[in-house]
Amino acid sequence: MFMDYDKFDSLFYPNSIAMVGVKEGTNAAIMMRILIDGGFKGKIYPVNLSGGEVLGRKVYASVRDIPEAVDYAFLQVPARSTKQIIKDCAAKGVKLTAMFSGGLGEGEEGEGNELKQELVSIAQQGRLRLLGPNCMGFYCPAARVAFCTKSPKETGPVGVLCQSGGNSVQFVRTATHNSINFSKIVSYGNAADINETDLLEYFTLDPATKIIVAYIEGVKDGRRFFQVVRAACQAKPVIILKGGQCEASAAAAQSHTGSLAGSRQIWDSLFKQVGAIQAYSIDECLDIASALSLMKRPAGRKAAMLGFGGGTTVLAADDCYRAGLLLPPLPDTIKDELKKFVQVTGSIFTNPVDFNMLYVSPEKVARAVEVVGNWPGIDLLMLQLKIESTHETLIEQNLLYPLTEAFIKAVKKVDKPVVMVIHAIHSAETYKGFLKAQKMCINAGIPCYSSIQRMLNAIDKAIKFYEIR
Amino acid sequence: MFMDYDKFDSLFYPNSIAMVGVKEGTNAAIMMRILIDGGFKGKIYPVNLSGGEVLGRKVYASVRDIPEAVDYAFLQVPARSTKQIIKDCAAKGVKLTAMFSGGLGEGEEGEGNELKQELVSIAQQGRLRLLGPNCMGFYCPAARVAFCTKSPKETGPVGVLCQSGGNSVQFVRTATHNSINFSKIVSYGNAADINETDLLEYFTLDPATKIIVAYIEGVKDGRRFFQVVRAACQAKPVIILKGGQCEASAAAAQSHTGSLAGSRQIWDSLFKQVGAIQAYSIDECLDIASALSLMKRPAGRKAAMLGFGGGTTVLAADDCYRAGLLLPPLPDTIKDELKKFVQVTGSIFTNPVDFNMLYVSPEKVARAVEVVGNWPGIDLLMLQLKIESTHETLIEQNLLYPLTEAFIKAVKKVDKPVVMVIHAIHSAETYKGFLKAQKMCINAGIPCYSSIQRMLNAIDKAIKFYEIR
Repeated sequence: MFMDYDKFDSLFYPNSIAMVGVKEGTNAAIMMRILIDGGFKGKIYPVNLSGGEVLGRKVYASVRDIPEAVDYAFLQVPARSTKQIIKDCAAKGVKLTAMFSGGLGEGEEGEGNELKQELVSIAQQGRLRLLGPNCMGFYCPAARVAFCTKSPKETGPVGVLCQSGGNSVQFVRTATHNSINFSKIVSYGNAADINETDLLEYFTLDPATKIIVAYIEGVKDGRRFFQVVRAACQAKPVIILKGGQCEASAAAAQSHTGSLAGSRQIWDSLFKQVGAIQAYSIDECLDIASALSLMKRPAGRKAAMLGFGGGTTVLAADDCYRAGLLLPPLPDTIKDELKKFVQVTGSIFTNPVDFNMLYVSPEKVARAVEVVGNWPGIDLLMLQLKIESTHETLIEQNLLYPLTEAFIKAVKKVDKPVVMVIHAIHSAETYKGFLKAQKMCINAGIPCYSSIQRMLNAIDKAIKFYEIR
Repeated sequence: MFMDYDKFDSLFYPNSIAMVGVKEGTNAAIMMRILIDGGFKGKIYPVNLSGGEVLGRKVYASVRDIPEAVDYAFLQVPARSTKQIIKDCAAKGVKLTAMFSGGLGEGEEGEGNELKQELVSIAQQGRLRLLGPNCMGFYCPAARVAFCTKSPKETGPVGVLCQSGGNSVQFVRTATHNSINFSKIVSYGNAADINETDLLEYFTLDPATKIIVAYIEGVKDGRRFFQVVRAACQAKPVIILKGGQCEASAAAAQSHTGSLAGSRQIWDSLFKQVGAIQAYSIDECLDIASALSLMKRPAGRKAAMLGFGGGTTVLAADDCYRAGLLLPPLPDTIKDELKKFVQVTGSIFTNPVDFNMLYVSPEKVARAVEVVGNWPGIDLLMLQLKIESTHETLIEQNLLYPLTEAFIKAVKKVDKPVVMVIHAIHSAETYKGFLKAQKMCINAGIPCYSSIQRMLNAIDKAIKFYEIR
């Protein structure tokens, strides 16, 4: 690790931002509006040769004309205009310039590759760092800098480096589903200057980042990347979503960010050698991150599951088997304890346990969670709740939030890692209820998923990560 | 096949129903309300020793007291009361009695097993058929009989036999997500009389059922089941979700429906021998059913994908690779055709194709669908659309439904099987939009999924089914 951490870190905490290429009604103006609405506390300067005003602010013809210092510039201009603007940024002493501009090294023919190299030379002479081109810039909630609407202002433990601008936005949107927050998301596009390895090194050193997630299409310097990713994996969990693992996707990656994707075999062996966690979708990245950031480390794979529904229970047991979790049979002492207050007919007293009609009584549910959760025979407790039932939903019965609260209260008296599933996604109403109940769980430190399969995949990968450490 | 189809079929089209065990405020009363609200056209007779009125109807003390003929009786009474009532039903000439009652052969000790056998003997003497015990009865939209709230009145091509009552309800709820409809769903619980094999035989013969879906925990007569499932698979697609494939789930199945689950090895070999489609969740069953019922049979595995987003496109190509779909490179003729009206910078002209900014123009999108869809180099066309973007959602931009319409219009001019993905599930609002747009697609005969992975899994399994035929 050779990075000057403090200097690099300061790039993401600008005191002032120039939005270059802004005109009323354009995408760049919306990006500027996002900064204003997001509560960015420093100065925001619109820049455009056309002058005039945008969102009530004076538009400067050049970055050089801005009367005060500028730390960060975001460029949304055609490729042909970038050279002069990068010169201006370097001359002005801008620290970081992110370029949305396409046509600089991506595409089928890699058009603009030479110009891209020129921009890097100019930047290096002026001690200016570049993000992109073909990127969204960065999202740093602590600095109130964001690149898309509805970005949470809360910071969280997950640091993301993402080669795709669209996927960077998807990380923010998907986090809504997982109720997870970020230290930073850095969209780095064609990686002319700052690349995947720099960012991986940065997030490894960054104390606010507890878990690193990377979407990578190609790697610039394989040898350095290998060293840095190995060090990163020793420091914290690293989840990698590798785009471009087949011929068609590699061609798409080449066209998308000018990346050389590298063979699947090399990547598979890299994952094994360094102990990185391989994910296959953005959803999965954040599912795993949620388990790693919230769930205590289980001592092993022996688990118990409590929940509602006979068929659901049978299928959940099969899913556990496939995910490599062990479900030891419930001992008689625990069964007897449960039978004191759980109706026998219609319940299942194996493991998983099916509570059946107990859901109408949150207090009894809490008691059952405590009884099973403190059974020394298990390393992990899983709870599952279905919002939709035969007649009214749990929301309509005013039971969803009391049950969630009962779970949370009981879990505090359980000395083991706990994860929850709230099945919901069949109507917009139940999905809304899921998101609210999930937030309650997450705030209480319990990871909460929308399906048994997503939950099991996430905890299996989290446990595998612990097993190889 | 030895079944008297017409006689068995008539069980699901009753002219009159007795709801036995009904009292105001009970679950049985809600089940009765579901029949009334669902528009059941025949007579509904509440029965309970307590007499009085329920939902404005006279309560009879016994089924025998009902002045007219009764075709179907639904029992929600304690196990100890069933014997007399089954006698009454047999004496009255009831054709089918479904029993919700538990405590008849399931549970850890199989309590009530003897009584269950007695009920079967009584029924057989009286030519009464039994469903359950421990079941929900049946859902037959054409007869306006349902067992849960919000059951669609439309009939559809999917016939379901389901050993779990809760899972039977989940099939109805999940169908909301898939916008799919059913010929019938039969919940058969502990299978004292009518069992999985009878129902499989029935659905094989039923002309309204084009695709059979089965949730099975255990099989009563393995030899007969094997013969019937083999014949079923020769007649139509059979998707089986087998519960109880490991020790823990087999114990749960025993406790849930008194089933002997059978070993995983036997089932795995059965799936191969008969050509049944193995599914692992209710969602997956209906995803596959949707592909099989709506998508034309693709001539092979060569596919093209069109959609929006560079990173999404790269990842989708990787997913296609893992699902065994081939993505041949786009020929120059098609590329040149597209470049006439699609902006080059920011687009990807490989396969998958990334349209990028074209989404603002539904007419151009339709044109691109036609150009790529009629390329003779492919067997299958996949389209993908993201509701959430960087700034406003497609719903907020009033583009989601026009784009969906443009897709549908263009697809009519494409001579190949087409499937769609609309990515949505990150907020309740976008999910609502997804459900509406999906319904538009389904109504136009295009299967439509909420993620690339779900779509690919469904079409891979559908294509595998065609390949082995």
